[in-house]
Amino acid sequence: MANIQDIATSAFINTLSALAFLLGFAFLRLQPINDRVYFSKWYRKGIRAEPKRSASVKKFVNLDFRAYLKFWTWMPEALRMPEPELIDHAGLDSVAYIRIYLLGLKIFVPIAILSFAILFPVNWFGETLKNIKDLTYSNIDKLSIANVPSGSKRLWAHVIMAYVVSLWTFYVLYKEYQIISTKRLQFLAGAKRRPDQFSVLVRNIPPDPDESVSEHVEHFFCVNHPDYYLMHQVLYDANNLAGLVEDKKSLKNWLTYYETRFERNPKKRPRTRTCLLGLFGKSVDAIDYYKTEIEKVIKKEAAEREKVINDPKAILPAAFVSFKSRWGAAVCAQTQQAHNPTLWLTEWAPEPRDVFWNNLAIPYVSLSVRRLIIAVAMFFFTFFFMIPIALVQSLASIDGIQKVLPFLKSLIQRPRAKSFIQGFLPGLILKIFMALVPQILMAMSKIEGHISISSLERRTAGKYHLFVLVNVFLGSIVAGAAFQQLRTFINQSASEIPKTVGVAMPMKATFFITYIMVDGWAGVAAEVIRLVPLVIFHLKNTFLVKTELDREEATDPGSLAFYITEPRTQLYFLLGLVYSVVTPIILPFIIVFFAFAYVIYRHQIINVYDQKYESAGKFWPDVHRRVVTGLVISQFLLLGLLNTKDVPQATPILLVLPVLSMWFYHLCKGRFESIFMKFPLQSVKQTGCNDERHDREGDRGQLQPEGVPERCLRAPGVQRCNNRRVASQGSRDGRWWWWWW
Amino acid sequence: MANIQDIATSAFINTLSALAFLLGFAFLRLQPINDRVYFSKWYRKGIRAEPKRSASVKKFVNLDFRAYLKFWTWMPEALRMPEPELIDHAGLDSVAYIRIYLLGLKIFVPIAILSFAILFPVNWFGETLKNIKDLTYSNIDKLSIANVPSGSKRLWAHVIMAYVVSLWTFYVLYKEYQIISTKRLQFLAGAKRRPDQFSVLVRNIPPDPDESVSEHVEHFFCVNHPDYYLMHQVLYDANNLAGLVEDKKSLKNWLTYYETRFERNPKKRPRTRTCLLGLFGKSVDAIDYYKTEIEKVIKKEAAEREKVINDPKAILPAAFVSFKSRWGAAVCAQTQQAHNPTLWLTEWAPEPRDVFWNNLAIPYVSLSVRRLIIAVAMFFFTFFFMIPIALVQSLASIDGIQKVLPFLKSLIQRPRAKSFIQGFLPGLILKIFMALVPQILMAMSKIEGHISISSLERRTAGKYHLFVLVNVFLGSIVAGAAFQQLRTFINQSASEIPKTVGVAMPMKATFFITYIMVDGWAGVAAEVIRLVPLVIFHLKNTFLVKTELDREEATDPGSLAFYITEPRTQLYFLLGLVYSVVTPIILPFIIVFFAFAYVIYRHQIINVYDQKYESAGKFWPDVHRRVVTGLVISQFLLLGLLNTKDVPQATPILLVLPVLSMWFYHLCKGRFESIFMKFPLQSVKQTGCNDERHDREGDRGQLQPEGVPERCLRAPGVQRCNNRRVASQGSRDGRWWWWWW
Repeated sequence: MANIQDIATSAFINTLSALAFLLGFAFLRLQPINDRVYFSKWYRKGIRAEPKRSASVKKFVNLDFRAYLKFWTWMPEALRMPEPELIDHAGLDSVAYIRIYLLGLKIFVPIAILSFAILFPVNWFGETLKNIKDLTYSNIDKLSIANVPSGSKRLWAHVIMAYVVSLWTFYVLYKEYQIISTKRLQFLAGAKRRPDQFSVLVRNIPPDPDESVSEHVEHFFCVNHPDYYLMHQVLYDANNLAGLVEDKKSLKNWLTYYETRFERNPKKRPRTRTCLLGLFGKSVDAIDYYKTEIEKVIKKEAAEREKVINDPKAILPAAFVSFKSRWGAAVCAQTQQAHNPTLWLTEWAPEPRDVFWNNLAIPYVSLSVRRLIIAVAMFFFTFFFMIPIALVQSLASIDGIQKVLPFLKSLIQRPRAKSFIQGFLPGLILKIFMALVPQILMAMSKIEGHISISSLERRTAGKYHLFVLVNVFLGSIVAGAAFQQLRTFINQSASEIPKTVGVAMPMKATFFITYIMVDGWAGVAAEVIRLVPLVIFHLKNTFLVKTELDREEATDPGSLAFYITEPRTQLYFLLGLVYSVVTPIILPFIIVFFAFAYVIYRHQIINVYDQKYESAGKFWPDVHRRVVTGLVISQFLLLGLLNTKDVPQATPILLVLPVLSMWFYHLCKGRFESIFMKFPLQSVKQTGCNDERHDREGDRGQLQPEGVPERCLRAPGVQRCNNRRVASQGSRDGRWWWWWW
Repeated sequence: MANIQDIATSAFINTLSALAFLLGFAFLRLQPINDRVYFSKWYRKGIRAEPKRSASVKKFVNLDFRAYLKFWTWMPEALRMPEPELIDHAGLDSVAYIRIYLLGLKIFVPIAILSFAILFPVNWFGETLKNIKDLTYSNIDKLSIANVPSGSKRLWAHVIMAYVVSLWTFYVLYKEYQIISTKRLQFLAGAKRRPDQFSVLVRNIPPDPDESVSEHVEHFFCVNHPDYYLMHQVLYDANNLAGLVEDKKSLKNWLTYYETRFERNPKKRPRTRTCLLGLFGKSVDAIDYYKTEIEKVIKKEAAEREKVINDPKAILPAAFVSFKSRWGAAVCAQTQQAHNPTLWLTEWAPEPRDVFWNNLAIPYVSLSVRRLIIAVAMFFFTFFFMIPIALVQSLASIDGIQKVLPFLKSLIQRPRAKSFIQGFLPGLILKIFMALVPQILMAMSKIEGHISISSLERRTAGKYHLFVLVNVFLGSIVAGAAFQQLRTFINQSASEIPKTVGVAMPMKATFFITYIMVDGWAGVAAEVIRLVPLVIFHLKNTFLVKTELDREEATDPGSLAFYITEPRTQLYFLLGLVYSVVTPIILPFIIVFFAFAYVIYRHQIINVYDQKYESAGKFWPDVHRRVVTGLVISQFLLLGLLNTKDVPQATPILLVLPVLSMWFYHLCKGRFESIFMKFPLQSVKQTGCNDERHDREGDRGQLQPEGVPERCLRAPGVQRCNNRRVASQGSRDGRWWWWWW
């Protein structure tokens, strides 16, 4: 067990490294050459442009020394933008995301103050550890529950604190759920009219022997939604077409490149070779060559499009169906259409950029089988994760390498190589495996068949949370690999498990403090400097960028990787809740993490990240559920711990807490969850009753038969579905979603 | 352990008693005097009338001896009515109910044949028990898995049988779910038009400072369902009014009685007294007296109605809202109306007779608290059920009675009283408590706040199933009260629990065989004779019946007490599945039970029961879930049992089964459940597109503004809600549902 000096040293080192990152960031962001990396969001929005190209040095390095004196100003700046503006600027997803850190602060700051005021004196004067002579103990442990003797009345202070912590967490969680759901409703109501608000995605359209998919959809919705159905767009499996479109884009880019070269130097027409990126083959005139190539691809594309449209096999049993009003779409998305509830599945059309196209056409039984397989795989992955790692680690040991690659023998026998292999390699392998986990889980979610990227991320986050819970939290407390724990737990009684974990818990507090500083503080500070995108940008800029378009695409602004960061953040919630009563000294470290992460992520969503989709905070129910899960775990562990402390009366009193927590969860679920799942008809009507016609200025698809105001469509003559008009729609470019763009 | 002779004796006795019941029934049903008890359904339907009143003896006793020779004909008669006719005659609920027994037959008959063919030889030649000299064993045990030695390869036959049983059960369950859901859709589509098909029950209407509830509903639905909203009916808390209506009915009955007496004997005007059922008080002319009394009550009723309508406190925050089409109602019932999903809750209006009026006005938080309280209460009730019984039993012992009621000392010291108290009283007390259980659980469900009688019965059945599982099934296998089991299970490891139960299981087979015969065979046979209603009918007929109306009401046709009988039936499913692999000799007894119950309940729903409501088989998902639960329990128990039999390879193979079962459950849930919860728009359109106008011949409320065909209402001028018409509706008699009748 580390004592206060050790912790202080570690804190000092980690604070230093975090500061170094921050200073590095402050320096790098002032350099114009990095502008696109650190302000990519503004570039994407078209608000910020390349710095003026007057002086050639100033183009790359900032020589204004006054700027360096204000290097810390980005922090207050990041906090300055008011939340409504931030929602406008970055979307509700991002704002809801940084509110997770705010939630952490709201929960833990008051708890920390109260714990310090009440539990510190109670623990400090407990004086158990002093009496045990042969035990080395640190000052940290004198501040924890371990210092209170068994059977002492002081333990009731902890029981009361457990109630205070739970009730306060309930209160904050409820308020926050309320705030986010209000914001979501406002956001959806205030959103600009887009086709997807009037549309529903229909999947699992059953095959019909007499009709094509398109006719079948048409007839089905004409019969079942006669007053609101407007038109539909069948989806095509057009992967080849998408490839051709990509090819065309690349060729056009090359053409632009050679044209600008020719413009700058009109004396010499640029030449290129025909094979392998212009490196081999016959030398030809570049501009002519690419022009003819583009012509060829355009012809191919037209042929391919014709083929796709006429090939019944390319038609997926899915379609986007549009309605005359948002009310009609809301109704269709929420109701069951067919007798067989696995056919004609309807849901709100995801944003076009949010759709995960590969999964749109999976039939029900296959989906069900996939979920089963993934559930089983997930079980093995979580509990037997350590086995392949141990295998690789044993292979990467000195003996293993000697066996597999005997010719390396002389190399690895050198002392430096030896110490690297022995000391560093196993840790590195673990790190690599751990970094791969979210990607593996994401692949699993994709197999499960979710149809939007946002739902993929939400499901992956759930899996990753379980993984972190078992392999990081439990794995750190109860040492040993997860499958060994599993065996222990199966062979242990239900009442023993919380005891085993609960007793081991206080001793691991110092470990987790170090973990928070390394993974939390330094990790978040590393986020702001964006080392990987920075390097990649400069590499691309130097070697690959040919045109402005290329430069545009060289910066990867990135986005909040919700499925990676949120489950990790949940670990801090869990640690905070678990240790708030047991070893409250951990709380300040967690609070620093939350505050720090809040500032940095707020800065990132303002200046850097460009979200891939907007789900309007749809992940909040998951966040809420996982915090409550953490709370329940903390309550059971405290119960287990106090069970060993000889306070039998505390058991029934503490057993009330998990029951209360589960009840609270159900209360909130009933109160808020459907705001995130369904779309209340009230909102549809209140926002769209008078001007339900679409925004016609935009370049989006026009959903309304020309010139007929929506209200008049109800007259009996007009209300039937205008088939002709529908059929004439939708013959533009793209992959499957021609109609969207 | 009982041997085959014991079982045979018990079977003989129980068969005899069942036969005695059946003979008694065959005799009693032929007596005209019992006609109303044994053919009450036909009387209710008005098809069967009182036997001709020619000969006075024949009126009471059947003297036609030929009839007695055909006393068994009711059985084939009961089976003869084809199912579609039966659905017409008794409703889908009843038919779905008897199909539970059919399901039992479909599952267990093939399994029994296969088990007999395969497992009997395997077990019989196992010869473990023969080798153990000092163990007394019976022939029954030689047929069970106990006779197969540990580690024997013969045990693989049991593993394979477990797979066959599970897969066959899946198949039958899936098919049956499919059949029932098809029948449900057909039934709903074919149902006669009733107001409740066009209506939605809205609850939790939020208070509005400026508007009355009625105005608020009006405005809300005019805004949110402008094209389909027709009218609404606010609900009043009119308990006083309901009392007055009851009084009026009773007075009218007395008036009829005295008028018929006067008609038969016109010379003497009947007289009555004014107090206490005409026994005391001033003597007055009966007909005049009751006429004036009725006048008084009618006036009171009018005043009370005026009061209720004008009293804002009497208005409940709930209303029935009617739509112009079933489509509109289906849409409203399935969608979320308000931003706050706990307000403006909509669901299909239950049938008027199915509504549980007391629970219509419970706000969300109160509902949530009630569910929490009942969940906790349910836990204690299930696991600590034996404690109050033990207490009462100890009070009812000789010592207890002597202490509490010392003056009875001389009485209870007599040997006969003593043996009664010692031998019979504890069993009687247990029986009484057990009989009270479903009623207590029903009271709990009522507190939970469900709004229809059908949902109350479904929830109670769920609770009772848990109770039977813990207190009857587990309680019989692992002897000891439930709370002791609970303690054992908490202190035992997860892998030990199935072992403990699994090992005890084969030894209890003979006990359960006896249980099936006593509770199943004799119990069902007792059902057909309807002893309690028979006695009550004759008592009422002799002492209370004054008029034809009274006689009509004296027969209680009863109904299927789903919440009592279904969980008990589930115990037989569980026993069958658990013992099908372990001790298949139990299966014939279960098959006889299912066959017997099927015939008898088919007879009862044809001739006797009059269902209180019709939910169109809405309970089937529960039945399905509970059978799958039984299957999972059986799989875990087999796993535990084989764990002790030294076949380690079998464990992972058998672990696949519960995973498969849970997957199967989810597959079926996704495929069928929403057919029982929602109402597909397809059905609404397919059944009502051309003649959506209501059946106007009936005496039900007329929902359509006079003379306007439904289709024309869409024209812009007419489509707005006709407020005047709505306001003029709904001023008839009744409790809250004036408008319904």
